[in-house]
Amino acid sequence: MLGRKLAARLATDRRLADAPVAQLILVDANESECPTVEAPQVEGIVADLSEPDTAADLVSHRPDVIFHLAAIVSGEAETDFERGYRVNVDGTRLLLDAVRAVGSGYCPRIIFASSIAVFGSPFPPVISDDHRLTPLTSYGTQKAIAELLLSDYTRRGFLDGIGIRLPTICVRPGRPNLAASGFFSSIIREPLNGEAAVLPVPDSVRHWHASPRAAVGFLLHAATVDDDRLGTHRCLTMPGVSVTVAGQIESLRRIAGDGAVGLIRREPDESVMQIVAGWPGSFDTRRATALGFRADADFDEIIQVHVEDELGGVIPLVIR
Amino acid sequence: MLGRKLAARLATDRRLADAPVAQLILVDANESECPTVEAPQVEGIVADLSEPDTAADLVSHRPDVIFHLAAIVSGEAETDFERGYRVNVDGTRLLLDAVRAVGSGYCPRIIFASSIAVFGSPFPPVISDDHRLTPLTSYGTQKAIAELLLSDYTRRGFLDGIGIRLPTICVRPGRPNLAASGFFSSIIREPLNGEAAVLPVPDSVRHWHASPRAAVGFLLHAATVDDDRLGTHRCLTMPGVSVTVAGQIESLRRIAGDGAVGLIRREPDESVMQIVAGWPGSFDTRRATALGFRADADFDEIIQVHVEDELGGVIPLVIR
Repeated sequence: MLGRKLAARLATDRRLADAPVAQLILVDANESECPTVEAPQVEGIVADLSEPDTAADLVSHRPDVIFHLAAIVSGEAETDFERGYRVNVDGTRLLLDAVRAVGSGYCPRIIFASSIAVFGSPFPPVISDDHRLTPLTSYGTQKAIAELLLSDYTRRGFLDGIGIRLPTICVRPGRPNLAASGFFSSIIREPLNGEAAVLPVPDSVRHWHASPRAAVGFLLHAATVDDDRLGTHRCLTMPGVSVTVAGQIESLRRIAGDGAVGLIRREPDESVMQIVAGWPGSFDTRRATALGFRADADFDEIIQVHVEDELGGVIPLVIR
Repeated sequence: MLGRKLAARLATDRRLADAPVAQLILVDANESECPTVEAPQVEGIVADLSEPDTAADLVSHRPDVIFHLAAIVSGEAETDFERGYRVNVDGTRLLLDAVRAVGSGYCPRIIFASSIAVFGSPFPPVISDDHRLTPLTSYGTQKAIAELLLSDYTRRGFLDGIGIRLPTICVRPGRPNLAASGFFSSIIREPLNGEAAVLPVPDSVRHWHASPRAAVGFLLHAATVDDDRLGTHRCLTMPGVSVTVAGQIESLRRIAGDGAVGLIRREPDESVMQIVAGWPGSFDTRRATALGFRADADFDEIIQVHVEDELGGVIPLVIR
């Protein structure tokens, strides 16, 4: 989803900061997921990064900037242990090694989409970039390993890496999915469409959000942020909006009225509550902010972004 | 060196805590380094853990306890990038995967010798187990990745891992080597033999030490420490003696006199000073201490251990 939005933005802008985009190569292992952007300088390739020769083939194009968003998501990394390690660890290492193998001064900027899952409870109320890496999922472990590789390969001068830990993306467009975090989007997206949504956790649950638009902004900014200002610590948590479910609901009320809020049905789910209890709620992102990364202003803006980018600026159903 | 001492101790004791040792298999990639212990229940195998089938062959013996000390050391991991990753990362993962592949409830205790190199400057004055993992060497990166793997495989129930971050081993027996940390041992070992030693850093440099005997004690204790008390965080820093070079020299003076101290020649070396400046000097090891790991009492004891274990209890030359 983020890859598609990033590709569309680059194809439209045809520039990255001050530099024109001469060519854009979009890669996905899954043909149906491979972003299709109709533009003369865009090429789509279906390829699996965890296959031995894929990375070398891709790197043969000598991209100046590589966005590495490919991943097995947390749920699947937990159920399919081998596939998670193959794609999230081996795939990343194959990419970094392919870049290293080029040599001759080739040193592209690689933007790696990491995750706040690299951290594991117990948490302080606010988590800084200095917090220890003790992931409590295979997905988080794999992201943490990829962060370590990225930092070491960068230190050795093989590439110019930056790892950005993305907040939960909200409001995620499309249909409800089965991810444990799905309800954070669902309780906004469905009511805006006049549909019911289920809230499985208490209103007091606090979480860390960014709109898809803000996340694309992080990726684009990461492509151009000054190397010297990153120093040796190449991985950092992106700014986000820290808000409780109650705060989300109040934003929805301001934008779409009581009727929309009335479509949220509280159905406490012990298993979802347990998973969510292990998630962090707030981060100290002074470093990212100082480097110029910008979050959404508040949760109202996160909903507005969804209305503008997904609903054509119109809320289909407003019941006041 | 540590492997040899551990093997000798196990072959002599013929027990690990309360349990008799039925069989002891010693493995090294290098024939000349493979520990030879003359005892009926001891078998030596020359094998490279980073070769595809080695780990499965070794695990076919179904050991209850596996000490994984194999590593490319820091200097070589920095000069031979690929070999460092192959042995320190791939070798470890092949071992963990071989254990996982056995299944059927096989869940051996695996003791992994990690390193304080998983941490990187800037440091607080005292570093806790909660300190972030930001290694600044390839060796430290590889140890940190192995720690993450060990924790995840343990969490998944594939094995029962514990990673112990060893202090610098001092006094290291044998001839001087070219490691940047070599002088910490050299300034004690050589004078005790009536030979000159070079000190390349100021007396104010503080470092974190354990005797070889204490380190073997850590490994043996790690083999039996209670699983429940380790919880989800399976890797921890071992206790040690935090002492300045000046403190080391005063210990030498107490034990071997002014004459021995007079054999230390100060030859400041800018490059060694720079490397050492990036090393931590002191750790908060409350967790390890609470779990029963015991350090040497002080640096005097570290020297005494060397005299007892390497010099037959006799200081060859004492000039008072």
